[in-house]
Amino acid sequence: MHSNIRISEMQLGDAFEGYYVLKAAQQKTSQNGKPFLNATLSDATGAMDAKVWDYPGPIGAQDVGSVVRVRGNVGEFRGALQLTIDRIRLADENDVYDCAELVPVAPIDPDEAVSEIVSLLASMDDQDYRAVAQELFEKHEAELRRIPAAKSVHHSFIGGLLMHTLDMLRLADFLSRLYAPTVDRSLLLAGTFLHDLGKTREFDFSALGLVTDYSVEGQLIGHLVLGAQEAAETAAALGIPEEKSMLLQHLILSHHGQPEFGAAVVPQCLEAELLSLIDSVDSRVEIYREALAELQPGEFSQRIFALEKRIFRHE
Amino acid sequence: MHSNIRISEMQLGDAFEGYYVLKAAQQKTSQNGKPFLNATLSDATGAMDAKVWDYPGPIGAQDVGSVVRVRGNVGEFRGALQLTIDRIRLADENDVYDCAELVPVAPIDPDEAVSEIVSLLASMDDQDYRAVAQELFEKHEAELRRIPAAKSVHHSFIGGLLMHTLDMLRLADFLSRLYAPTVDRSLLLAGTFLHDLGKTREFDFSALGLVTDYSVEGQLIGHLVLGAQEAAETAAALGIPEEKSMLLQHLILSHHGQPEFGAAVVPQCLEAELLSLIDSVDSRVEIYREALAELQPGEFSQRIFALEKRIFRHE
Amino acid sequence: MHSNIRISEMQLGDAFEGYYVLKAAQQKTSQNGKPFLNATLSDATGAMDAKVWDYPGPIGAQDVGSVVRVRGNVGEFRGALQLTIDRIRLADENDVYDCAELVPVAPIDPDEAVSEIVSLLASMDDQDYRAVAQELFEKHEAELRRIPAAKSVHHSFIGGLLMHTLDMLRLADFLSRLYAPTVDRSLLLAGTFLHDLGKTREFDFSALGLVTDYSVEGQLIGHLVLGAQEAAETAAALGIPEEKSMLLQHLILSHHGQPEFGAAVVPQCLEAELLSLIDSVDSRVEIYREALAELQPGEFSQRIFALEKRIFRHE
Amino acid sequence: MHSNIRISEMQLGDAFEGYYVLKAAQQKTSQNGKPFLNATLSDATGAMDAKVWDYPGPIGAQDVGSVVRVRGNVGEFRGALQLTIDRIRLADENDVYDCAELVPVAPIDPDEAVSEIVSLLASMDDQDYRAVAQELFEKHEAELRRIPAAKSVHHSFIGGLLMHTLDMLRLADFLSRLYAPTVDRSLLLAGTFLHDLGKTREFDFSALGLVTDYSVEGQLIGHLVLGAQEAAETAAALGIPEEKSMLLQHLILSHHGQPEFGAAVVPQCLEAELLSLIDSVDSRVEIYREALAELQPGEFSQRIFALEKRIFRHE
Amino acid sequence: MHSNIRISEMQLGDAFEGYYVLKAAQQKTSQNGKPFLNATLSDATGAMDAKVWDYPGPIGAQDVGSVVRVRGNVGEFRGALQLTIDRIRLADENDVYDCAELVPVAPIDPDEAVSEIVSLLASMDDQDYRAVAQELFEKHEAELRRIPAAKSVHHSFIGGLLMHTLDMLRLADFLSRLYAPTVDRSLLLAGTFLHDLGKTREFDFSALGLVTDYSVEGQLIGHLVLGAQEAAETAAALGIPEEKSMLLQHLILSHHGQPEFGAAVVPQCLEAELLSLIDSVDSRVEIYREALAELQPGEFSQRIFALEKRIFRHE
Amino acid sequence: MHSNIRISEMQLGDAFEGYYVLKAAQQKTSQNGKPFLNATLSDATGAMDAKVWDYPGPIGAQDVGSVVRVRGNVGEFRGALQLTIDRIRLADENDVYDCAELVPVAPIDPDEAVSEIVSLLASMDDQDYRAVAQELFEKHEAELRRIPAAKSVHHSFIGGLLMHTLDMLRLADFLSRLYAPTVDRSLLLAGTFLHDLGKTREFDFSALGLVTDYSVEGQLIGHLVLGAQEAAETAAALGIPEEKSMLLQHLILSHHGQPEFGAAVVPQCLEAELLSLIDSVDSRVEIYREALAELQPGEFSQRIFALEKRIFRHE
Repeated sequence: MHSNIRISEMQLGDAFEGYYVLKAAQQKTSQNGKPFLNATLSDATGAMDAKVWDYPGPIGAQDVGSVVRVRGNVGEFRGALQLTIDRIRLADENDVYDCAELVPVAPIDPDEAVSEIVSLLASMDDQDYRAVAQELFEKHEAELRRIPAAKSVHHSFIGGLLMHTLDMLRLADFLSRLYAPTVDRSLLLAGTFLHDLGKTREFDFSALGLVTDYSVEGQLIGHLVLGAQEAAETAAALGIPEEKSMLLQHLILSHHGQPEFGAAVVPQCLEAELLSLIDSVDSRVEIYREALAELQPGEFSQRIFALEKRIFRHE
Repeated sequence: MHSNIRISEMQLGDAFEGYYVLKAAQQKTSQNGKPFLNATLSDATGAMDAKVWDYPGPIGAQDVGSVVRVRGNVGEFRGALQLTIDRIRLADENDVYDCAELVPVAPIDPDEAVSEIVSLLASMDDQDYRAVAQELFEKHEAELRRIPAAKSVHHSFIGGLLMHTLDMLRLADFLSRLYAPTVDRSLLLAGTFLHDLGKTREFDFSALGLVTDYSVEGQLIGHLVLGAQEAAETAAALGIPEEKSMLLQHLILSHHGQPEFGAAVVPQCLEAELLSLIDSVDSRVEIYREALAELQPGEFSQRIFALEKRIFRHE
Repeated sequence: MHSNIRISEMQLGDAFEGYYVLKAAQQKTSQNGKPFLNATLSDATGAMDAKVWDYPGPIGAQDVGSVVRVRGNVGEFRGALQLTIDRIRLADENDVYDCAELVPVAPIDPDEAVSEIVSLLASMDDQDYRAVAQELFEKHEAELRRIPAAKSVHHSFIGGLLMHTLDMLRLADFLSRLYAPTVDRSLLLAGTFLHDLGKTREFDFSALGLVTDYSVEGQLIGHLVLGAQEAAETAAALGIPEEKSMLLQHLILSHHGQPEFGAAVVPQCLEAELLSLIDSVDSRVEIYREALAELQPGEFSQRIFALEKRIFRHE
Repeated sequence: MHSNIRISEMQLGDAFEGYYVLKAAQQKTSQNGKPFLNATLSDATGAMDAKVWDYPGPIGAQDVGSVVRVRGNVGEFRGALQLTIDRIRLADENDVYDCAELVPVAPIDPDEAVSEIVSLLASMDDQDYRAVAQELFEKHEAELRRIPAAKSVHHSFIGGLLMHTLDMLRLADFLSRLYAPTVDRSLLLAGTFLHDLGKTREFDFSALGLVTDYSVEGQLIGHLVLGAQEAAETAAALGIPEEKSMLLQHLILSHHGQPEFGAAVVPQCLEAELLSLIDSVDSRVEIYREALAELQPGEFSQRIFALEKRIFRHE
Repeated sequence: MHSNIRISEMQLGDAFEGYYVLKAAQQKTSQNGKPFLNATLSDATGAMDAKVWDYPGPIGAQDVGSVVRVRGNVGEFRGALQLTIDRIRLADENDVYDCAELVPVAPIDPDEAVSEIVSLLASMDDQDYRAVAQELFEKHEAELRRIPAAKSVHHSFIGGLLMHTLDMLRLADFLSRLYAPTVDRSLLLAGTFLHDLGKTREFDFSALGLVTDYSVEGQLIGHLVLGAQEAAETAAALGIPEEKSMLLQHLILSHHGQPEFGAAVVPQCLEAELLSLIDSVDSRVEIYREALAELQPGEFSQRIFALEKRIFRHE
Repeated sequence: MHSNIRISEMQLGDAFEGYYVLKAAQQKTSQNGKPFLNATLSDATGAMDAKVWDYPGPIGAQDVGSVVRVRGNVGEFRGALQLTIDRIRLADENDVYDCAELVPVAPIDPDEAVSEIVSLLASMDDQDYRAVAQELFEKHEAELRRIPAAKSVHHSFIGGLLMHTLDMLRLADFLSRLYAPTVDRSLLLAGTFLHDLGKTREFDFSALGLVTDYSVEGQLIGHLVLGAQEAAETAAALGIPEEKSMLLQHLILSHHGQPEFGAAVVPQCLEAELLSLIDSVDSRVEIYREALAELQPGEFSQRIFALEKRIFRHE
């Protein structure tokens, strides 16, 4: 018997047994009055519809996001594969499985990424900005390695914030050199590193690390103000000059560029302007990257909400 | 000789001697090549053009906002009164004058206003919100008595923030009762009291207390985030529950109602919604009050920038 | 047998017989080819799904909004209560039931509300404005006691316009005193009373008094112009000075504040400005009040269309 | 001596004596302390700067818009012609002059225009719409022959409303035939004729018939609502069916097309849609016609406020 | 047996056999596990749901837009007619049917329309503009007779572009005379004729000539730039003066009026302004014409996406 | 005698003689009736007011933008330096002066810049895109070395387009590597190189190479469509595949990102998206660079039109 086949590799007729994420679940009643569970199972490679016939519970909608151990077969319904589940139970602390196989993760090596970030932070000339950035790196390293950068729009996988932060730092580094000496490299690098750290508090996360929703303070305060407050407190604790603390806060508060995109103030110094542009570039490229992967050459996507348009994959 | 006549009461032919504010000043050269000072003098009752003929300085544009001691006569030019100054010098620490006569002040009794605010704060049922508000009242009472609420749009006179705060508290109190029990009166009163305290850092002030411009942190951070940070710190120092601190911050951060009007987040609870509406009501009424005072019945104003329209004074 | 149990109090296994509103109805065919009626029954306390099995009519979609007499039992389907109806017929003139139990009504005492409005109208100093307001009160008192203030957004229950008008008058009265003498109290109170009277013609109403849709003249002319025309005619009939009639019309025509919210002209005098602000306050508070009642503490609502955002119910 | 030379034909050295409009006037004091009048004189062909040296009054800013009798010479200042006035006095009832020579008039024959309008109105098949239009034509014929259609944007000359109305009726007539039978020709023609009649009350006019400003009711009510009210009253007096009256009002109230352009409601029937489009066509063509007349082939205009752009005159 | 009954004339119980368009098709599985085809059949008169029971294919979603030969009966389901199909196969080259009966066509006589266009083009005084228009008429006559003017908004039937072009030319001709001599008639007629020719490349068409979607170059370049390029090439090939070519391109590039409606530049000469207005008039009238045909007198439509509002059909 | 002193180095009392640009000129009449020329002289280092007393011409406003040879002295007026000119004449073909000293030039070495561009173009893998770019490089090299990238907003100096193009290519190159393999490097580099070449036709240039205004085709067609047309023609002449030509045109037509910023279509493939972002980055950085150079540390600028805000120069 095949054990724990990757969802993207399942074929008609396969039997399987192993761990998957219960991505969706609805208790239903069939035409003949029997209860069944209409579910979706997922792992890092994809998701598939599944049915647990004659199943009265207890597993249901309240368990969405949990890992389940299941046994079943790959069948077919209306031309698409569909799983028929014989046994299902919630995984508990005695179960052994590899989370990295169950949820999507950033296509990067996290140790290399962290190491490159450490080097970039160490390369700042200004010791004040460097101190704030390094202090907050140490405080948040574990979360940085783990959390997504968003609920769904872009970088919504494990390690998403790490990937987003690194690519933005690389771009900030390049622009600091391209536009030297007009740009204050240390300020730009520090602001870039700090800009999304408030996301560690803006979201609620599932047990497996994905974003399930905005947290209450994420909705009522937002990651810009949360991040600026933490930067201010850290700068004060380290005895950094007031103006530098203020500039760091300004970069964080303004990094969405325009009030209608969530900026608390508009960027008013060059480094703030660049940070908001770098964030636009990296976010939009990632939205394209993820959407293009679903398209064939010569094909247009459906309308993409975050871009307010359809996009085209050329040859 | 008349001494220190109020500007609104000056008449053609009057001689005067006393203290005025140098509201504007430009060094010029007359047709015949002689230097003269083109100035505007003001007191709490108004402003008037003035000339200091054959005057090479040293007083000039750099002294705008200072108090000067002058002697002169009231003349006329093209149908309007104009002052001719014989002597002018900057006032120094030995000069004795009453600031209240030199700059516009709020048309309220400051002691009564403060006393009413104290009572309203004391009337909150929730001791946590009350504690934060009272703590910040004590810290800022002196500034609250003094500073304007704006550079020019509304309440731009000495005591303007005090008047604005009091009228908004009265309205908040009324609405809390009108819409009881849906409204949390303590939260609304506390948020109303705190909402503009960040203005103590948002502006630069002249020696006489008027707003001369936005401060650097006023521009780059803004009074909403400055105020929310102070509220958060105060709440933390007093050991107030996190959720209450967060709600207070939310009210402050959202009190401009819409991102395009400067709100860092949009109001998402009823008290935040009401605070932004109360702020609109009191600001707009004051803009009308000041503009209507300049109009005759049956007359339209010029276009008022802050209202984006002309207004009408009916009979 | 329990008779006419309130919907909010129905429990599994209850038998019931009585009058309810047919809130929705669709004729369907079951899997085995038999006709049945898929319906929703409602009363003032709520609504519930219901099935009339093996029912070929005549009652169907064309009877939505009517009162029906039904007999049935409370069952369950997929974890939710569902009614099974044995008998159903339309109520006719011989049936006796209490409308107030069938449709939602404003949570106020209508007689007290009317009496308070009468007092407020009588308290106006200006006899011209008072005369117009009192004349139109007498003409519309019956409708005012009955009609909702909207189809669905806020105050969409029986007596909604009465509740909305009274709360706005109370607020207008308070603001007139807070901002005396800048505000013309009589003009503000009269305009507030008149502002939504055009809604008596803007809507079509069901037999039970709820709004079913906009009327043709409601769509093509709108309640602002309809109301202003009636005010103009009444003022002319009473011989009120032209300027006062014009000001009343101006308040009515501008009370939506901005052209994009439906204002025929923008408010240009203080009382018109205040009226549009008071309307915003009372409408928004009521939207919050109704939405908060559906939420648990600590919970966010779904996006509320009229507010363009989600709202939060705090502890 | 040349008498009353047309301003567009004045040449350096000409002496003149006659009637002109005092288009602008400011009392000033010359360098040597002497009073003089800085004025602009105009007639139907143009306007020119003028000086009345050593002139202490009484004519001044308060007489702008009046006709003056002047005697003077055509001189030159900084490369431009300038009038030097020897004598000036206000014209009174004993003076005889031709208004048509003093103010710009529409480039049409008013009798022919009126006669064509009469024919078009008479050609409507629907006797109800025809009756309202003819009734209001009789009531307003005199004003229609005289008043401008605007203060300055387009058709701001004597007879402007007549020209605008006729061209729109011609276009309405053409479209009714082009899109027959979808268009109700009578409704479209009637609405077109009525659409701007409220302008007779929206403006204040100078003695010579030009628009000096908006009237109070023009500002506070607007010509759309004023016109709709008059149409409603006329229809009621004539006993026209309610729906027809409502449709006429709808056309008038919606003819600005969009709320942000002043429409009280948006057009919701085809004839209302067409009326707003016809109004756009005729207004924009006239703005172009007037602006192109000031340009040379191959030249761009300055930015034209009403069009929000510069326009080009091709060969 | 009735053969090929028009869909709008089908009645319960009719048997039919003939050619229809497969407008929609979905393979489904019934409750008892049997495959069936859920389809919609259409002809020029309408569309109707159809079922092919126990049908495993091969016809399915991939054949939408093709002509099928079917045999079946007219039944009923939940109060609406529904077709039951016994036999279905794709039509091939041996089948004989009349396309004009299968897809909607413009309600005009195409030969007369073409002939009137030819006359209007021939009537231009300017031989350069005439030459370009006539050259492109010859090149595109066949497509002009056939293609729709849009995918769905208006004129989306066979011959739609021809009808749209002719009505716009008639209106352009009328306006050129109404506003002579301000309008350059030849430029306006030529630009009107050319304005939408780029649509021949902007769309993909089904075998029957309807628009199925935007083409890749239609999405990435758009019919304005495609049309302007072709006009430029044609003008260059014919040796037309540069400025005239530029003006033609300007009219084509700007005919959507505003950037947010797709204009590459805003109209800056009168003929460009008129062209964009004429396009608005004809498009909107057609949207109304098509929507009004679906309404009863006294009824409002649903919200019409392209108009952003509901419309009313009066008596 | 000092000859041709740089304007930024002039000091009170200096005599000078040499070539300057007549940046502004107005003929005026002094108080005593004498003609004089009120002028501004400029060179690459700055500009200064100048007076030519008792000067009746012929030099005047019509000569603005020309080079003049002048002799004069540096005086002072109201505290600012002012030039008094004794002799002035237009430079003609016999005069020898260095244009680079008279107008601002890009702060780059043009030969190195061109050489780097040549290398980047040669480095494209795709021979089709490379061929188009190299062909247009050869055609436009001379203009590319010379023309500004704008009239005034940014890069408005000699060589501005060269500097803008190079910095954008460097950034395009970096992003192609950062986001490999998602980005098609050849397409992005080619599009970046081509994107502003239409500016060679969009502007009129002064004899010294600065932009004086938009050309007629620049206004009526715009540099996006002009550039796309030239790319299409070049691609066709070189026999490049249609899809590649279309993608190049798409990049050029969409590089302003949004219709309201002038894009003819919105970017719909990743390289188009990146091009518009790169253009934003480089334009905004240059606006900041030029504005920051005018500010002191700690100072805010005036409102900058192109950024819609004030900017801050930090320490």
